[in-house]
Amino acid sequence: MDESRSPAAVLRRPREVVVEERRRPEPRQGQVLVKVDAVGICGSDVHYYEEGRIGSFVVESPLVLGHESAGTVVELGPGVTRLQLGQRVALEPGVPCRRCPACQAGRYNVCPSVRFFATPPVDGTLQRWVAHDEDFCHPIPDALSDDAGALLEPLSVAIWATWKARVRPGDRVLVTGAGPIGLLCAAVAAAAGAVEVAISDPVQARRERAGDFGVTSILHPADALPDGSAGKGFDVLLECSGVAAAASQGIVALNPAGRAVLVGMAAGAHTELPTQVIQNREIALTGTFRYAGTYPSAIAMAASGKVDLDRLVSVHYRLDQVPEALRAAREDPSVVKPVVLPQLARDRGGEFRQHAPG
Amino acid sequence: MDESRSPAAVLRRPREVVVEERRRPEPRQGQVLVKVDAVGICGSDVHYYEEGRIGSFVVESPLVLGHESAGTVVELGPGVTRLQLGQRVALEPGVPCRRCPACQAGRYNVCPSVRFFATPPVDGTLQRWVAHDEDFCHPIPDALSDDAGALLEPLSVAIWATWKARVRPGDRVLVTGAGPIGLLCAAVAAAAGAVEVAISDPVQARRERAGDFGVTSILHPADALPDGSAGKGFDVLLECSGVAAAASQGIVALNPAGRAVLVGMAAGAHTELPTQVIQNREIALTGTFRYAGTYPSAIAMAASGKVDLDRLVSVHYRLDQVPEALRAAREDPSVVKPVVLPQLARDRGGEFRQHAPG
Amino acid sequence: MDESRSPAAVLRRPREVVVEERRRPEPRQGQVLVKVDAVGICGSDVHYYEEGRIGSFVVESPLVLGHESAGTVVELGPGVTRLQLGQRVALEPGVPCRRCPACQAGRYNVCPSVRFFATPPVDGTLQRWVAHDEDFCHPIPDALSDDAGALLEPLSVAIWATWKARVRPGDRVLVTGAGPIGLLCAAVAAAAGAVEVAISDPVQARRERAGDFGVTSILHPADALPDGSAGKGFDVLLECSGVAAAASQGIVALNPAGRAVLVGMAAGAHTELPTQVIQNREIALTGTFRYAGTYPSAIAMAASGKVDLDRLVSVHYRLDQVPEALRAAREDPSVVKPVVLPQLARDRGGEFRQHAPG
Amino acid sequence: MDESRSPAAVLRRPREVVVEERRRPEPRQGQVLVKVDAVGICGSDVHYYEEGRIGSFVVESPLVLGHESAGTVVELGPGVTRLQLGQRVALEPGVPCRRCPACQAGRYNVCPSVRFFATPPVDGTLQRWVAHDEDFCHPIPDALSDDAGALLEPLSVAIWATWKARVRPGDRVLVTGAGPIGLLCAAVAAAAGAVEVAISDPVQARRERAGDFGVTSILHPADALPDGSAGKGFDVLLECSGVAAAASQGIVALNPAGRAVLVGMAAGAHTELPTQVIQNREIALTGTFRYAGTYPSAIAMAASGKVDLDRLVSVHYRLDQVPEALRAAREDPSVVKPVVLPQLARDRGGEFRQHAPG
Repeated sequence: MDESRSPAAVLRRPREVVVEERRRPEPRQGQVLVKVDAVGICGSDVHYYEEGRIGSFVVESPLVLGHESAGTVVELGPGVTRLQLGQRVALEPGVPCRRCPACQAGRYNVCPSVRFFATPPVDGTLQRWVAHDEDFCHPIPDALSDDAGALLEPLSVAIWATWKARVRPGDRVLVTGAGPIGLLCAAVAAAAGAVEVAISDPVQARRERAGDFGVTSILHPADALPDGSAGKGFDVLLECSGVAAAASQGIVALNPAGRAVLVGMAAGAHTELPTQVIQNREIALTGTFRYAGTYPSAIAMAASGKVDLDRLVSVHYRLDQVPEALRAAREDPSVVKPVVLPQLARDRGGEFRQHAPG
Repeated sequence: MDESRSPAAVLRRPREVVVEERRRPEPRQGQVLVKVDAVGICGSDVHYYEEGRIGSFVVESPLVLGHESAGTVVELGPGVTRLQLGQRVALEPGVPCRRCPACQAGRYNVCPSVRFFATPPVDGTLQRWVAHDEDFCHPIPDALSDDAGALLEPLSVAIWATWKARVRPGDRVLVTGAGPIGLLCAAVAAAAGAVEVAISDPVQARRERAGDFGVTSILHPADALPDGSAGKGFDVLLECSGVAAAASQGIVALNPAGRAVLVGMAAGAHTELPTQVIQNREIALTGTFRYAGTYPSAIAMAASGKVDLDRLVSVHYRLDQVPEALRAAREDPSVVKPVVLPQLARDRGGEFRQHAPG
Repeated sequence: MDESRSPAAVLRRPREVVVEERRRPEPRQGQVLVKVDAVGICGSDVHYYEEGRIGSFVVESPLVLGHESAGTVVELGPGVTRLQLGQRVALEPGVPCRRCPACQAGRYNVCPSVRFFATPPVDGTLQRWVAHDEDFCHPIPDALSDDAGALLEPLSVAIWATWKARVRPGDRVLVTGAGPIGLLCAAVAAAAGAVEVAISDPVQARRERAGDFGVTSILHPADALPDGSAGKGFDVLLECSGVAAAASQGIVALNPAGRAVLVGMAAGAHTELPTQVIQNREIALTGTFRYAGTYPSAIAMAASGKVDLDRLVSVHYRLDQVPEALRAAREDPSVVKPVVLPQLARDRGGEFRQHAPG
Repeated sequence: MDESRSPAAVLRRPREVVVEERRRPEPRQGQVLVKVDAVGICGSDVHYYEEGRIGSFVVESPLVLGHESAGTVVELGPGVTRLQLGQRVALEPGVPCRRCPACQAGRYNVCPSVRFFATPPVDGTLQRWVAHDEDFCHPIPDALSDDAGALLEPLSVAIWATWKARVRPGDRVLVTGAGPIGLLCAAVAAAAGAVEVAISDPVQARRERAGDFGVTSILHPADALPDGSAGKGFDVLLECSGVAAAASQGIVALNPAGRAVLVGMAAGAHTELPTQVIQNREIALTGTFRYAGTYPSAIAMAASGKVDLDRLVSVHYRLDQVPEALRAAREDPSVVKPVVLPQLARDRGGEFRQHAPG
C-alpha cells in the first residue's frame, strides 16, 4: 500500500460513513506517528453516526470516527525522548492544553481546550496513521493484545468511575446498565474489593453475558431494589445507562453516606433526581467526564489479569466495514465491543480476515 | 411559678399553638435537666405550624415545637460526670442511638433512630424544662448570650454545609437564599477564607440585610450568573433556598470540579438537576441533613467573634406569643430570627418584657 | 462441666499463665453472654506474656489474655434486640464510651475510655464465657469457620490499614514484615486492586509462606528497593514489622505523593524517619491504632472468599495449652496463627482433640 | 540605562554576591519578558549564600539568586495569548515539564524536571529582566503593591500548607517557628477559620511581632503544650522551624486524628518523630514541597485583605545591596522580609531611594 496515504473511515453526514484517503500526518514537536492497529467502536461513535451530534458537540464537517485505539510507533517527531520505534502503545485520546487551571490541577479531562479524538472538529483514529503527543501514547506490554490495548480506553472510564466512587474493600456496589462500560465498571469494582456487585439491565442478552465480569447478582430494572434508608442497601451506585429512572432508583437504594457516580450520558441536559434522599442520607453524587491519569493503572490491571479485556471482543472489522461495526454495536446485544483493524486490507475475495490477537 | 409544672407551646393541629402545662421531666441515666432560656424559631417550626408535616414527618398528636435552644443545667441525672449545676449549655437537639453503623461511623446525624427535638413524635424545647443527654448539652462561655447559644443550632447547619463543601482559603462561593441559614452559610464561608461570597435572594428586604454577613456581592435570582464552564465561575454552591431553579442555576455557575451542597429542603422529593453539567464538569454534589460534631466548633466560632449570632436576632417573644413568633418568621422579612424566652412570665399588664442579651 | 464456672487462661506474672476458674459473667443492659469458641493468639498476647507490659499498658494484676475471638450467643441481657440465642458471632474486642468527641466523630478506636479485651485492666477472651455489648458482637455466616471468625480481628487491622492507605485499583504496594498482619495486609491490598504487592521479611520461613497471600514479589530487607524519586517506586507502604529501618527504607521507595501507614508497633516511642523525602515527595504518613467500623467488611471479605483466613491457622490448642500456643506464636515460624479453643476439654488421655472448623 | 543589558546579583561562591551584567533574555514560545520590580529575600537565598548548597542542591557555577518576584510584562513571545504589555504579574517561580505523571496528576510541584528560579543551575530573579512562561506569570490587581506581588510566593507556601492540613472553621492550630513562613501560616490558618492559632518561637523579637498575624497566643518552645491525648490539644500542627524538637513536641500536642504538616526544612535528611503518638492517635502527617495551584488564591487572599503582605516588609534594597539584604534576613529579627527592587538605580549620592509601595 501507498505509505503516504492514510485511508480513513469518515462520517460525512448522519448514517453515511465512507473510506476516504487522507494524507499521512507528520509528527510535530513532542509527537510520534502511530500505525493504528485496533480501534474499538464506542457508543459515542454510534451516536455521532446516527444523530450527527452529541449534546452540544455537532458534526459540521466530515469527521473521522474512533477513539479507542492501540498502535505501533513508526516515526518519532522532534523532541521525543521516551518512546522508540516499534513500541506498541495505547493512545489516550484526549490531549489537553497543559496550561489552564484545570490542567495544572490534574483535572486535565475537564480542560476547556482538550483535543479529543473523534470529537468535532478533531478527527479520530479509524484510519491507518495518526500523529499523537508522546506522553499520551502509553507503552503496553507484550501480554496485552491489540484489542486489549484499544479497550484500555473504556477500561479507563471504568477505573475513573471507581476511583470517583472511592470503592474500597467491603463495599456493596450497584451498576445500572450492562453495556461495555457497565460491565467494565462491575469488573473494576470487583477488583477493588467490592463484596457485592449487582448489575441491572432491561435487555436479556446483556444480562446473560454479565456473569463473566465479577458480578454477584444480575437484576432487571423492574426488580425491587433494597431500600437503603436503614443501611441495608448499596454503598455505591455506578450509573452506566444514562436512564433517569435508573439513576433515581439506584440512589434510593443507597445507604446513608452512599456515593453515586453518573457515568452514562443522559439524552437531555437535565435529569430529575431524588434530592430528598440525597439530603436525608447525605449521598455524595458526581459525574464523570472521561478520565485523567488512568492509563498506567488500566494497563497494569489488564496485564495482571485483574480485568480481562479480550473477553469483551467477539468480532473484528476492516475499515470499509465500519458501518457494519457501528450497526452491530447498536443493534446486536451479542456483540459487546466490535473492534476495527485499520491495517487489515480488503482481501481479494472481499472477505473478512480474522485477526489473531496478540 | 410552680416548679413541678412545665408550660409548653404545643401544636395541636395546623395553625393552632397553645400553651399547655406539662409535667417537668426527670433526668434519666446520663441526662441533665435543663431550664430552657432561649429558643430560636426555625423554618421547620413554621412549616409544621402551617402544614402539620414536613415530607414524611407528620404531626399526628400534639407536639411541642422548638429545637434551637440554650439553657441552664438545674439537675443532674445519675451517671452525669461532665456537667455541673448552673452550667449554661447549648442543646444539640438530636440524640442518636449510639449503636448503629451510622453512629459508629461518626455519621450520627443519619442514624435511623435519632430522636430530634420537635420532630414527631419527639417534643421540642418551647417549654420551661427539658431533660437531655449530658453529651448533647454543650457548655457555652459567658461571652455568648442566650440568644447566641440558641442560634448555635442554625450555625451548626452552616458549619456542616461548609465542611461538606470543603470551603478553603481562596474559594469563590455562591449562596442561594438569604434566610437565616443562607446568611450563616455566607458568614461561615467568609470565615473559612472564601475570597468571594455572593448571595442571591428574590426578596429585597432579605437582600438588604445580607451585607452584614461577610457577603461580597448581593444578587437577585434574575441576575445573570457567570458561566462556570471556562473556570470563571464559583468553586462552591451552598443552596439554601430549596428552590429547584436556584440549585440548577447555581450548579451551572460552578467551575469544573466545583462542589454543590443542597442545604435548603425542597418541597418535593425530586428535583430536576443539570446532570450534563454535573458530568461534564465533574461537579461533586451532596446534601446535608442537620450536622454532626459541629457544636464545639460553632461555640468557638461564635465566642471568638468570627460569626456574630446576636446580629440575627431583632425581637423576642414569650411562650404565649409563639404564634406571633411563627408568623413573624414566615411573613416579616425584617425579622431574621425570632427568639422565644420560655422563662419569661407574662407581666401584669400583658406586655412583652424586653430581654437583655448576655 | 459446671456451667456457672468459666475456666480462664490468666497471666499472673510475666511467663506464668495458668487456668483459673472465674465466675461466669451476667450480661448487663445491651449485652449478650457469649460462649467463646475460638481465640487467635496475637503478638500482643505474646508481648504481655513475655514482658508484662506493652508501652504504657502494664499488667498489674492477673489478666485473662486473648482478644481475637468468635463464639455463640447463649444468653441475652436486657434491651438486646438484634441478636438471638444460638447466633454465631465475632467479638469486636474494643467497646468505646460512645459519648466522647472521638466516638461522636466515628473514630471510636481512639476513644480514651475504650475497654479492650486483654488490655490491662480489662480481661480478655481466653475463657469459656464472656459478656459483651450486643453491637460489638457481629453475626457471622455459616460459611465462616470459628477460626475465621476469630481471625476477623487481625483482618480488621489489615482492612483499616488498607483503607487508611486508600489503596485503589492500579496501586503498587510494599508490605514490610510477613507476620500475620503483614500477610493479611498483602491479601487485602491485592483484593483492593493493587497490581503489585511486594512483601519483605528477614526470616526465610516467613518469606516462604508469603506467596499464598496475593503477593507478587517476595523480598529480603537487604534487597535493593526501587528509588521512588522518579516515580518508579511504590504508591503505598504498609509497615507491619515495627522496625525503624523498614519504615525508612519503605518510605524512600515511595513515589511522589505516596502514602505510608505505620501498622507495626515499634519498640520505642520515637522512630527516625526520612523527613526530607516525606517533604520533597509530599508523602502522606499515618499510623493505625486498631480499627473502626471494619467488622462488617471483614466478614464480607472472608465470606466471599476474597481473603482466606483458614489458611493462616495450622494448629489448635486447649485452654491449658495457652503457654504452648504463646511459645509457638513467638518461636515457630511455621505457625502463622495459633488458635485456642476454650470449649475443648482435656480428654482422658490428655491429648489434643482436633477441632473441625465450621 | 542600556536596555539590552540585565544587571544581576550573582552568587559566585559562598558569601560572595556581586552585580554582573547579563544579556537581557528573549522570550521563547509561550513566554513573556518581565521587568522585575520587586524580589523578596528568602531563607533559601540566605542558605545558598552562606553554605553554597541546600541538601542535594549544590551551587557549582555562578547563580543568580531570588525567586519571590513581581514584575511587569514588557515583551510577548510567540504564542502568548493571555497576557498584555504592561500587565503587572507575580512570577510563580517553578515551571514544570507538563508531561510527567506528577504534572498530569496536578502535583507539578514534585515534577522531577521542574525548573525553579535560583535553584542550581537555574538562575533566579535578582536581575532586571527575566523570561518566564506565560501561565506562570499571574496577573495582579492594582490593589496589590509590588512588595505584596513578590510575597505571594511565601504566601503560596503558607496556603499550600494550610490546604494540606485541611484547616477548617473551628480548628485549633499550632504553628512552630515565627519566621516569615510561620507568620503567614498563622495568618492563613486564621483566615481559614481557625479559632485558636498559637505560635511558638525561641527568639523574643520574633515572638513580639507575631501578634499582627491572626495569632491568638504566643509561646516560647520551653512552654508546656497541652497533651493532646485526651482531645484537649490542637487539631493541626504547621511546623515551620525545621527543628526536630518542635516537630516532636507539636505532634504530641495534637488531638486524636490530628494533622501535622512539616513545612520547615530540617538540617538533615532524617528526623526522630514520636511514632507511638502518630500511631496511637492516628495522626496524619505530611510534608510540603513548595506548592501547586496556589497563586490565584494567594492573589485573591492578599487583594481582599484577608492577609496583609505589606506588613511583612520593613526595608528595601537595591541590587548592589543584596549582600546587606541577605545579612538582614539572617541576622536582624526586626526585619521580617527584606525586599530588593532591581529597577532601582544607585542614585548619585549612593543612597537608597525609598520605594513607595502601590
